[in-house]
This record gives sequence, C-alpha cells and structure tokens, in this order.
Amino acid sequence: MSYSPFSLVSAEIRQRAANIRLACFDVDGTLTDGRLYYDDNGGEFKAFHVRDGQGLALLRRFGFAVALITARTSLAVEKRAADLDLIARTGVQDKLSCLRRLCEQHDITFGQVAFMGDDLPDFECLQNVGLAIAPADAHPWIGDIVHWKTRARGGEGAVREACDLLLEAHDHLDTILGVSPQ
Amino acid sequence: MSYSPFSLVSAEIRQRAANIRLACFDVDGTLTDGRLYYDDNGGEFKAFHVRDGQGLALLRRFGFAVALITARTSLAVEKRAADLDLIARTGVQDKLSCLRRLCEQHDITFGQVAFMGDDLPDFECLQNVGLAIAPADAHPWIGDIVHWKTRARGGEGAVREACDLLLEAHDHLDTILGVSPQ
Amino acid sequence: MSYSPFSLVSAEIRQRAANIRLACFDVDGTLTDGRLYYDDNGGEFKAFHVRDGQGLALLRRFGFAVALITARTSLAVEKRAADLDLIARTGVQDKLSCLRRLCEQHDITFGQVAFMGDDLPDFECLQNVGLAIAPADAHPWIGDIVHWKTRARGGEGAVREACDLLLEAHDHLDTILGVSPQ
Amino acid sequence: MSYSPFSLVSAEIRQRAANIRLACFDVDGTLTDGRLYYDDNGGEFKAFHVRDGQGLALLRRFGFAVALITARTSLAVEKRAADLDLIARTGVQDKLSCLRRLCEQHDITFGQVAFMGDDLPDFECLQNVGLAIAPADAHPWIGDIVHWKTRARGGEGAVREACDLLLEAHDHLDTILGVSPQ
Repeated sequence: MSYSPFSLVSAEIRQRAANIRLACFDVDGTLTDGRLYYDDNGGEFKAFHVRDGQGLALLRRFGFAVALITARTSLAVEKRAADLDLIARTGVQDKLSCLRRLCEQHDITFGQVAFMGDDLPDFECLQNVGLAIAPADAHPWIGDIVHWKTRARGGEGAVREACDLLLEAHDHLDTILGVSPQ
Repeated sequence: MSYSPFSLVSAEIRQRAANIRLACFDVDGTLTDGRLYYDDNGGEFKAFHVRDGQGLALLRRFGFAVALITARTSLAVEKRAADLDLIARTGVQDKLSCLRRLCEQHDITFGQVAFMGDDLPDFECLQNVGLAIAPADAHPWIGDIVHWKTRARGGEGAVREACDLLLEAHDHLDTILGVSPQ
Repeated sequence: MSYSPFSLVSAEIRQRAANIRLACFDVDGTLTDGRLYYDDNGGEFKAFHVRDGQGLALLRRFGFAVALITARTSLAVEKRAADLDLIARTGVQDKLSCLRRLCEQHDITFGQVAFMGDDLPDFECLQNVGLAIAPADAHPWIGDIVHWKTRARGGEGAVREACDLLLEAHDHLDTILGVSPQ
Repeated sequence: MSYSPFSLVSAEIRQRAANIRLACFDVDGTLTDGRLYYDDNGGEFKAFHVRDGQGLALLRRFGFAVALITARTSLAVEKRAADLDLIARTGVQDKLSCLRRLCEQHDITFGQVAFMGDDLPDFECLQNVGLAIAPADAHPWIGDIVHWKTRARGGEGAVREACDLLLEAHDHLDTILGVSPQ
C-alpha cells in the first residue's frame, strides 16, 4: 500500500488532527532551515521548500485556513504567503494575541487550531492549541511540550509532514492520489 | 574496475534505460534541493548542481533530447536550460499534456521517455513513461510508484546518477572515460 | 523535566560559565556555517541562524555584554549586530588586542570572558579566556584547546547552545521558561 | 598531542606532498559544494568556505604557488582569488594545457603539482600530477583515480585538509601552531 502519514502518529494525534480547521506556522526555523541570509546592502532573504509549498497549497484547496505568523518583518514572507494564498502576519510581537484574533475572525476555538513552531516565541501558542507540532530540529524546550515532532527538519519538509497528516485526518488522500493530482 | 552506474540497478531498469531517447526532469526538488530563495525585493533564486550539469551536457553531446519541465515560472530555469542547450518548459500546469506534445515533436512514444520528479505534480508523467525516476528524498507517494530511486538527494547529484545510467545503457562510457574527457 | 544545558557539560564548565560577563563570538564558521557567498557583482553575503539570534537576544535581555569579532570587513555583520543590539568589531587583524580593549572598556578580566571560535585566528583568544568554546565542526587544532565543544555545528545552533549554558549558569532559565517567554 | 594531517594519509602520500610547489584547485564541487545559484536577473553566485580560505592563505604565506582553475567564467572566482592572492584561470576549456603553461611559468614539473578536482573535466590533470586529490563526494570516476580522498566534502573543508597536509609535509606546523597564529 501507499505511504500513510497516519503511520507516523498515535491515535490521539490523529484525533487532534481531525478537529483542525486553521493551520498556523512559524516561519524561520519551521518553514525555513533557520538561515537568515544577510547581504552587504542591508538586504535579507530566506529559503522556503517547494514540497512544503505543495502541502500548503493542498490545505488551501481542501478548505483549511492557513496562516504564517512571524516576529520578523519580511517582504519575503508576505510574497510567499501571497503565492500560496495564505494569511500572513509579520512583525508579530505577541503570537498568542495574534492567534486569538485569528480564531475570532474564523469563529473557531484553540482546539481547532494546529500550530507549528521551533523556538521560545512559539511557546505560548504551542501550549494552547489543539495540535502542537515542532520540526525535528526544534529547540529542546519546544520539543518537550509539543504533541508531535516531525521526522524532517525545518525547511526540509517538516511542514509538508504536518500538511499530509491534516489531509489524511480529513479523508482527502483518496482524492489527492486517486483523482489526477495537479 | 571503474565505477559502473549499472551496478546500482536491476536488469529491467537497464533495459528500460536502453530505450530512452528523451530525458525529462522536474526542476524544484529534483534538479535542486527544493529550496526556493525569496529576497525582500520580490526576487527569487535557486541552486543547481554542477555535477548534474555535467551529466546533462553529456546527454546532449551523445544525442539525447533533454527537457526541464516545471510548474513554476522561472527565468533561472530558462537560463540554466540555455546554458546547457536543453528544452525548457516553465509555468506548466499540466505536465502530462506537455510531455505528450514533446513526444509528438520528437516522434517518440512514452516508452522512450525517462521522467524524473519528486512530488505530486509529477505523478501522472511518472506513471506513464518508460523509465520513472525519483531522487532519494522524493515525497513517499512518488517514491512508491517510480521504477528507480537514486542514491543522491535532489540537487545533490540525483540527476547525474540518472544521466550516467542512460549513458551506460547506450554504451557511451568507454568514450567518456577512455577518450580524453572534456 | 525540561531540557537543561547543564546536562551537556561538566561541573568545571558550569563554574566557568557562572563567571562570564562578556560573551564574544567569531562570525564565519561560528555564527555561520562558514559559507561565504560571492556573487558576480562583487557582492558578498552570509547566513546567520534564527535560533542563535534568539539566544543572543536573551543574553542581552539578561545583561550580558555580547560582541561579534571578525577578521573580515562585513556590512552584513554590522547589520546583524545592530539588529540584536550587539557590539560589532569587524576587520580585526589581531583579535587578542581587540579582546583586551573590550575587557578594559567593560572593566572585566579575561576570566569573565567567554569566547567562541572555530579556526586559527581565534587561537590566542581561546587560550586566554575564562570559557573557550568551539562549534562541533571547528578545525581540529581549535577543538584540541577549548574547554567545550557544542553538539551543533557552526551556523546550525552552536551559538545558541553556548547562550543557553550561560543563561542557566546565571539562573535565568526559570524566568525564561516560567514567565511568558517573548 | 595536537591534530596531525599526516595521521590521515600513507607514507607515500606524505612523500608526494613533500614535493609539491604548485597547488591547483578546481572550483565548483571542490572549493564549493557544487551549488550554482541562479537568480531571476541572469546573475549567478556560489559559496566558498572560510576555513578553506584560511588554508589557502597559509599556503601563500609559506611560499606555495596556488591556482584556481575552472571551466566556467566567473567574476566570483576572480574576486575570491584576488582576496586570497591566488592565480585565477577561468573559462578554461582544456585544463591540462592550462596546467602545462602554469608549470612552464613556474619552471616546475607535473610531479611538483598537487591538483584537486571532483569531476570529468579534472580527469586528465589528476592522471598526470604528483599528487591527485578529490573531495569525499567527488564523482566515483574521479574517486577511482586519485591518490587521496579527503574526509570532508567539497565546499565543506575538503580544500583545507589538502592545505594542512601540504603545510605539514613542508614542516610548517610548528610555526603555525607555536608562534602566535594570525
């Protein structure tokens, strides 16, 4: 049989994933490998992963709300979010307040939120959401409190693992793999 | 004796490789490590590998048709293709239709096509060609359906392994290693 | 219980860390993975790690003096230092003299200095400070003389390990993990 | 005792290294990890490693001639060479002829040349020089014919290992490690 994301997680995680309607992702260290490239002209850039993008696009196609939440101000993040039709919240000093507002706007509870992050600025959000996820190389203080750590490291497909889990928990795999995928 | 790409594959794969006249490659995650670099000015770039380029140049030197096929629009891909005298198809929404047209233009069948890809947009092409290849780190759904997975990851020499296999299957190694290589 | 940086080091290292008031870091190979990116217009850039930055920001928040010291001239380093409120010393030919001046300015001894570096230009500083640290992939000649080598490689979180150790040695972990982290 | 590069190689390799006066290096895949970054404006860049640069600077300080030889045209290579006071030969179609001219200019034989490369364009040079070296991840066809493969991969310190070996073979380690290194 074909690969199943469910094979990676416990029944409890599957159940938590089945309740999710909003998926939120930290950017640096989660959607990227943590590298912040600085050039000599004051410019900055970062690297996203194409397979993460494919997973986020599938979440959108199947009706999930998806948000990128980062403490840094970054036009790169806004462009990446726009390319994939995601919500972008940049320059966020208090991620928990930001998340609370997003829940109100979407009329959902924290239990219906998945949050993925790798370091202390994500700490409070991860303690409050229905499904808390960290990439394999998250800071140990974060790895200690999440429900699930992916096998992949940040920026190397960790976000895709989370997306695939949500898609299977909502019974979309047959459509993705059976019908002609795009 | 010297290294032989044939040592990596079964007799069936060798036979499939012997029939190939057109070699097609997905770009992001296959010819690259999947990283999409975004800068703060709306610019984007990606990294190809020099040893993959050497392999693609050898394919061209020995008469193979070679095409890069990507869903993204990318001047970087067009430049890379131009540097190596390859066909470039960018902004492709339906890769199977694109591949069908390439076959018509070259008057060949799907059985004479090798296709290498790493994720769902490559799914249909990989199900239809004579030789379906994926890099070591392809998405598991892709790894499940291809004829052969390379030892190297995308962007780290995976494409070169595929090129070397095709070159050996068409009896070009003696020329490459015996005559002064360029 | 939660992850403790103390679990990685001996009692002697913990004691050395408790005395530190100034933390100094080499840049290339220590705060970065050593890669120096050169473009075709004479420009140069490099990649810092977001989790290192979080650690350095915490050091500053808890009153440590923090300096980046590099032999290269680099606007990228000056910008990174400015972003994190750190001292930047670039174009430094003699790091030991530079360090001596920093100690005078802060009215501290070498025993109150932690220095982290990866190669020969850091040799003398590492031989003289109270706590000499190297990333996991430092040159062996450096690895041979430091008090402690981190588990992470340069540019992949090595600096964060050093920061976390200093923070625990100065009893700040409860504040960081108990009070709402930012 | 301190780390010795001699511990990595046989007596024969040490003897070969003792004869070297000119050290030549391929660029892409040897001085870099092989990644060729293409941006969307036709620009191209690549990443050198700081510890390789330190080794090359030491070779120059102790009187070795050092040359970078690459088939690609690259201002980045010319700048990197200029920064380190190295000979740069770019856009080289026939590396063996280029090497022969360098030997004539320096009045030395092939036996006094070390050459380090990773792929077919380096094949002939590696077959003719006194000391042929490849990075750990060189193409197998190259790995099969060199005298020595470094432990590090290209762009991750492979060149530094070669430099350190040459420095020890010429009895410079005491000066480097004993006298205050710079």
